[in-house]
Amino acid sequence: MDVFGLLHLDELSHGLANLSMFPYFDMAHYIVSVMALREQPGALEVSRVSPLACWFSSMLFCFGGAVLSGIMLAEPPVAPLTNSTSVLLASVIWYLVFYCPMDLVYCCAALLPLRLVLSGMKEVTRTWKVLGGVTQAHSKYKDSLLVMIAIGWAKGAGGGLISNFEQLVRGVWRPETNELLKMSYPTKITLIGAVLFALQQTHYLPLQKHHLMLLYTMFTVINKSRMMLTGSSTSPFAAFESAIYKTLFTGYSPYAALTGEVKKACIDNGTTNEMTSTSTTKESSENRAVGKSSPASPVRGQSESLKAKEESENAETTDCKKTN
Amino acid sequence: MDVFGLLHLDELSHGLANLSMFPYFDMAHYIVSVMALREQPGALEVSRVSPLACWFSSMLFCFGGAVLSGIMLAEPPVAPLTNSTSVLLASVIWYLVFYCPMDLVYCCAALLPLRLVLSGMKEVTRTWKVLGGVTQAHSKYKDSLLVMIAIGWAKGAGGGLISNFEQLVRGVWRPETNELLKMSYPTKITLIGAVLFALQQTHYLPLQKHHLMLLYTMFTVINKSRMMLTGSSTSPFAAFESAIYKTLFTGYSPYAALTGEVKKACIDNGTTNEMTSTSTTKESSENRAVGKSSPASPVRGQSESLKAKEESENAETTDCKKTN
Amino acid sequence: MDVFGLLHLDELSHGLANLSMFPYFDMAHYIVSVMALREQPGALEVSRVSPLACWFSSMLFCFGGAVLSGIMLAEPPVAPLTNSTSVLLASVIWYLVFYCPMDLVYCCAALLPLRLVLSGMKEVTRTWKVLGGVTQAHSKYKDSLLVMIAIGWAKGAGGGLISNFEQLVRGVWRPETNELLKMSYPTKITLIGAVLFALQQTHYLPLQKHHLMLLYTMFTVINKSRMMLTGSSTSPFAAFESAIYKTLFTGYSPYAALTGEVKKACIDNGTTNEMTSTSTTKESSENRAVGKSSPASPVRGQSESLKAKEESENAETTDCKKTN
Repeated sequence: MDVFGLLHLDELSHGLANLSMFPYFDMAHYIVSVMALREQPGALEVSRVSPLACWFSSMLFCFGGAVLSGIMLAEPPVAPLTNSTSVLLASVIWYLVFYCPMDLVYCCAALLPLRLVLSGMKEVTRTWKVLGGVTQAHSKYKDSLLVMIAIGWAKGAGGGLISNFEQLVRGVWRPETNELLKMSYPTKITLIGAVLFALQQTHYLPLQKHHLMLLYTMFTVINKSRMMLTGSSTSPFAAFESAIYKTLFTGYSPYAALTGEVKKACIDNGTTNEMTSTSTTKESSENRAVGKSSPASPVRGQSESLKAKEESENAETTDCKKTN
Repeated sequence: MDVFGLLHLDELSHGLANLSMFPYFDMAHYIVSVMALREQPGALEVSRVSPLACWFSSMLFCFGGAVLSGIMLAEPPVAPLTNSTSVLLASVIWYLVFYCPMDLVYCCAALLPLRLVLSGMKEVTRTWKVLGGVTQAHSKYKDSLLVMIAIGWAKGAGGGLISNFEQLVRGVWRPETNELLKMSYPTKITLIGAVLFALQQTHYLPLQKHHLMLLYTMFTVINKSRMMLTGSSTSPFAAFESAIYKTLFTGYSPYAALTGEVKKACIDNGTTNEMTSTSTTKESSENRAVGKSSPASPVRGQSESLKAKEESENAETTDCKKTN
Repeated sequence: MDVFGLLHLDELSHGLANLSMFPYFDMAHYIVSVMALREQPGALEVSRVSPLACWFSSMLFCFGGAVLSGIMLAEPPVAPLTNSTSVLLASVIWYLVFYCPMDLVYCCAALLPLRLVLSGMKEVTRTWKVLGGVTQAHSKYKDSLLVMIAIGWAKGAGGGLISNFEQLVRGVWRPETNELLKMSYPTKITLIGAVLFALQQTHYLPLQKHHLMLLYTMFTVINKSRMMLTGSSTSPFAAFESAIYKTLFTGYSPYAALTGEVKKACIDNGTTNEMTSTSTTKESSENRAVGKSSPASPVRGQSESLKAKEESENAETTDCKKTN
């Protein structure tokens, strides 16, 4: 608090905490979300074939967090539809982005300076959504840190977490990838935010709410702008993640366990490790032969099949770089 | 109202509104629904391999609307099971349609005159279901037109809307098609009904409820009979839909945008349109090569893969034509 | 009761009924569940690539029943997360089974004697879970036998019933198989338990609750031990099932109906049976050609594709046999 006082940030954080998301920040969120949908491979074709599926998909991009957290808390997932103004606003934006004469709206919004501003504003709404989710969970489940984190995360990154089912609406099915198997940057940053706000809510984090809001918002906005301007998609937590991963999830029995060490360790009682790896190989080779989507070893083939998704995820960043 | 009075339809509409769906109309609904399931490709095989999966699938055909609207309103999706009489009735019909000695029940019910009557009666239940959904949503969310439409639609056309998951029960997965991407006639007529009843409920439509019920029921029954007798599957709204589509969803930037015009318009800032279309092509050619279900461009391949579904959707109509 | 009195089992059954599942039996359930996940093909690879997806999958294995019954009763599916102690315990076990140095925990627990004890203890928790589900449904829906059975089944065998979606978390998608199409032994025994406890709860079964608990627990534990020791995966109900199947689901129109008899019976009105079988064949041959996952006739191809699953399901049994 002292630091905040010294830097005269107290007023700023209060001002930010009292900021209303509606209508400007919400609009920015809708625009950026619908543009992200439009940049998904195949989305434009769907928009021509079935405007209804396209609209429904857009709504899932815009209100996915509310829908997912609603389901998780056993509250009506149709609730977002009750807010007619928001739905109308999002629908108008959906219409303009996809069907505007001369494609004016999309072309303008895709210009780097405007897109930078819109993306920054969208990041601001993330803070509000995560905090909303955490608060909502706190009011229902007083002392459950895990539920708070889950709901905050779902509310802030819902669109990404339900992406498999959003894609299904558009007739696309990519079971080999999801946000849990390979988290994108927005999902990661939202998870971190949910953890921080949940810790603040339960007073494990000695920070005032509006200070945390200011810090988190500044971090997300600055980081997003940096990523868009430099075109890099490297996460700022890469080193940290790597360290945690190496410490916790490799231990003494690294991935080689699959092929070598465990065989020696468990050779006497013939554990399933061997069996599993054999059956995996057999099955995946069968799959290759008959051409089914490989259910057994999604990880190996993933590097290729994820490329397309990666590209579309980073599209926001990369093509803004191109616009320079 | 004057017109209704003149034509002496007032009493008729009151009589219709007081009609009880149980047991005869409900029975007709179950018979037609279970027969529609039986005519799905592969359903008969599933009925021999796993009667339980077949039964569960039948229940989703019969009570899909109640299940879906239950989920959407955060009410227990098992609720339909509490009505033992209905479940028992539907189960008996499921058993008779699938396992009756000599296949007597199915063969009889598939005769055109009987099927015509049963299908007509099933259409009558649609009115009640849509109205039930709209009323239920109205009692929860007073002034939200969108929620009323959504719930009315879900309740009336639930079986179709959840068809992807109903198929999954039978081990079938066709992600490239769903009712939002390509609406079937029953889904369309139910959506229109939901809109009309929601407008009536909120007094935007200056009609009395029982008059609207009579009009809507007559329209659906007559239209269904016409479609079954002539064997045509053309929607009566085709011209209307086409006009709306051309007005709203093509604008100045038609589908050609994907390939030509946008390139010129946005050539300077190198938008993703180009990128997207390129990656789409690349990915879909890859998919063809490795034989995966094409996630990137579901639309192109759809015409082929939809054929089977189309056939089964229209089976009711087409094979009744054959029976002439 | 007399028999129970004579055999001095009354006290034993009372003692069992008052047994606390936490922590030892719950722990055994978590260990066996997480080991079952680890023995799924591809699971070890996922655990290296994305610990989070692996953790989430493990939680679905451990708490799948609570999640599924929560969804079915419109109660928050995040509720299991509120029990921090259980989640923590399950998470520690997940960590130890997957990432323990030298793979010590898995190797030890996979030793036959220990695995036998753990599996037996897990079977005991099944009784409590089924009973919990039936009681919960009874308190909500007084007289609905079907709902009680459904919830009891869901709570006891949730992990299996949602396996399609649990696999999706790990990037695996096998639509051609699910627990309804081909029930595994645990799912079957849970269904029977749910039926028995529901009948007891509604007083159709003249047995006291603690007596039924003793009988059911003894049956499941002894049967599981037998299966693990002999390595057989034959269900003890095979003969009974076969008799029911032959009586009810073949009747006078056996599977041959598809190819022969129905044609004769319905030859005059050209039913869809012929059409269906033709289109099925056509479609499935198309599928084979283009290499899609066969949506039309999942049953034919199932015998092959199910093998892998069968193996993993029985892995628990088979590799314990090997350890002898």
